[in-house]
Amino acid sequence: MKIPPVKGTRDFYPPDMARRNWIIDGWKRVSVRNGFEEYDGPIFEYLKMFQIKSGDEIVEQLFSLTDRGGRELALRPEITPTLARMVNQQINSLPRPIKWFSVPRLFRAERPQKGRLREFFQWNIDIIGVDDVLADAETIFCALDYLQEVGLTPNDIVVKISSREMLAALLQSIGIAEGELEDLYVVLDKRSRLPGDTFEQMLAEKVPDENKRKKILGLMAVESIEQISDCLELNETARESVDELKRLFGLLEVMGVADFCMFDISTVRGLAYYTGIVYEIYDRGGELRAIGGGGRYDNLLRQFGGPAIPATGFGIGDSVLAILLEEKGLLEKQLPSRKLDYFVVCVDEVYRETAVKLTMKLRSAGFAANFSYKAAKLSKQLKQASEQNAGRCVIIGSEIENDQLIVKNMATGKQELIKLDKFFAELKS
Amino acid sequence: MKIPPVKGTRDFYPPDMARRNWIIDGWKRVSVRNGFEEYDGPIFEYLKMFQIKSGDEIVEQLFSLTDRGGRELALRPEITPTLARMVNQQINSLPRPIKWFSVPRLFRAERPQKGRLREFFQWNIDIIGVDDVLADAETIFCALDYLQEVGLTPNDIVVKISSREMLAALLQSIGIAEGELEDLYVVLDKRSRLPGDTFEQMLAEKVPDENKRKKILGLMAVESIEQISDCLELNETARESVDELKRLFGLLEVMGVADFCMFDISTVRGLAYYTGIVYEIYDRGGELRAIGGGGRYDNLLRQFGGPAIPATGFGIGDSVLAILLEEKGLLEKQLPSRKLDYFVVCVDEVYRETAVKLTMKLRSAGFAANFSYKAAKLSKQLKQASEQNAGRCVIIGSEIENDQLIVKNMATGKQELIKLDKFFAELKS
Repeated sequence: MKIPPVKGTRDFYPPDMARRNWIIDGWKRVSVRNGFEEYDGPIFEYLKMFQIKSGDEIVEQLFSLTDRGGRELALRPEITPTLARMVNQQINSLPRPIKWFSVPRLFRAERPQKGRLREFFQWNIDIIGVDDVLADAETIFCALDYLQEVGLTPNDIVVKISSREMLAALLQSIGIAEGELEDLYVVLDKRSRLPGDTFEQMLAEKVPDENKRKKILGLMAVESIEQISDCLELNETARESVDELKRLFGLLEVMGVADFCMFDISTVRGLAYYTGIVYEIYDRGGELRAIGGGGRYDNLLRQFGGPAIPATGFGIGDSVLAILLEEKGLLEKQLPSRKLDYFVVCVDEVYRETAVKLTMKLRSAGFAANFSYKAAKLSKQLKQASEQNAGRCVIIGSEIENDQLIVKNMATGKQELIKLDKFFAELKS
Repeated sequence: MKIPPVKGTRDFYPPDMARRNWIIDGWKRVSVRNGFEEYDGPIFEYLKMFQIKSGDEIVEQLFSLTDRGGRELALRPEITPTLARMVNQQINSLPRPIKWFSVPRLFRAERPQKGRLREFFQWNIDIIGVDDVLADAETIFCALDYLQEVGLTPNDIVVKISSREMLAALLQSIGIAEGELEDLYVVLDKRSRLPGDTFEQMLAEKVPDENKRKKILGLMAVESIEQISDCLELNETARESVDELKRLFGLLEVMGVADFCMFDISTVRGLAYYTGIVYEIYDRGGELRAIGGGGRYDNLLRQFGGPAIPATGFGIGDSVLAILLEEKGLLEKQLPSRKLDYFVVCVDEVYRETAVKLTMKLRSAGFAANFSYKAAKLSKQLKQASEQNAGRCVIIGSEIENDQLIVKNMATGKQELIKLDKFFAELKS
């Protein structure tokens, strides 16, 4: 019986796995050098955990299941709620600031599209316990530290940055009630992805008042932080968050990543829990979905039954990233190729035991070694060794009767007859 | 609102994550040096995929879910069916033998017990395309290569080995019909875990004939391969599989791992798909569940709609392994501790930008570096550096006005005043 894989999932054959490992190992390495420690949670949590303040969009996209005890569970679509739960559980013993990262496997029950799968990996970093915008800047630096390391330049990608707090203050000064903000964010968040007409139509549904709508559209047309005060009169909260944004851009300059960053007032983020600085990372060409995004979420821990502790962080998925790296020619050439240190060739079945013994000794000594299961023709075994990218071949033939073997350097083709004990002595050094 | 984690799952706080990574990195390293390549599949597959010949025991333990399209899916309880599906999909292009490994996250919807969780990791290695018992021996060597590397000795663990093919031939020569074998295996598999009475009762239900039952009990009391022929007359199949077992033990001797291995006729393995050599790894004390197990499954690929290709492999979970390593005092002392290369101390907020700039430069250069978000007291920042196990502190104070900084070696306590450009020049070398 032949059964296909489930739509929107991926099979990772060794070459695919090598790509996945290369991406994830890079995320881990950069996280560690930026001072983050790794954590992870379970693949599934109580369904209601994801319903707390995650916005309707995400709840609709859950893979939910019921266990034998009747508990309603869901496969995690993001790890931030788990992070909030875990931090709250140990809030009194964890030294702050908490700088944690994770590379969770996540799940979304939506129609698979380019760069959007039902099962994917996401790099998450979070700083908990720092309200200074310095922490937001640091998360942006960390993302760019990785993206630069894999070869992306300011010509390839851009971080679009804004502030939810500022937007809230500005919209309120236009006359939008606090309770209407969240619904409005969902519309504003879609602005860059929709045709102008469609966007204005959607906006009109949320904001029937034409005067207010005009002001919102004017605000959305602002192209620099400085222009905001030309467009609207700023109240104190708005002024403070404008200043915070300016400080953020100053810090990004100091960090050496300003070329990657721009102010973009229509960057809002879909999720409901963001409270301050928000950002999204895009390809400059604007052809792909967001590579990732993040921001400040100062209320989330409290919403999960913990104390009010400021927090900021981002998520970067593997799918869009891989597409972009591939398009830029940065993926295949950077992958480490499979390599064996030794391939042990056995010329005749009578030497089988020696070949097996030698191979296992090489492995125990830490060398990657393979052997042929059958004493096939020498040329066939050498071909196999070269297919497996072996650095050296050890050839076991009649010479072994004089305690000697042949070592062939596969790069130079040079062969050397060597005493068995000398071979092992040299391995150790 | 406070929400607990789901029973039988684990939260991996950074110290737990360090343990998980240490175990999994070891599995990966040993797999690679034994010539295996890594693969992985999706977390969920079609439910029916696990129903094909996996034995009732495993189907009852599935977490199943239905997606929006009404498809019946299940979280994977093992990866071997996925392996069979993937190999079949590319059977014509994959060079053989296929030597693959994986470290999948797996799920079982059963009551959590010591060493048995609802969510766990399992090391899997498989050799596909080799019918020689040499491949079975190699998988056992590979498991022991890892278990020895983490410090376990023949005093700590034992591999109990038998052959399903031999057992089938022996039971059939006693008069058990081929169609009754599978049900009988399930009972025999439980022998070592049940009191003698209970076992005999269960056996009596499957084998009402007292004469046959006596012969089975006699067979189960056999303690060496040689004793089998004293106990029963061997037909040709039985003789061939006895010889194969003898060859396996000979190869394990050659490989240098015979001290870890013993023949145990009651080792059967619960899963239905095994066809030849089977083995289980236990702690010598016999206090824990099996650390892992495996064997030959020559029919599985065909059952999944592919050609008849021989295969052999094992699975080792992380839960029992971690308990054993902890009990033997082999876990904590081998864990690498967190380490920062640099902690950047900022003595006064006026030097903030320099401190930030320097920290980011260190990170981009590949060093693990952290800094303090506030210019707190020097002693407090040094304490933080030492808590984070920093090798060196860079202290930025008034000296920076002369382009100088202080580097403090945290191990020796020695401080050095150094020019900024010299500091960066030395970093590069």
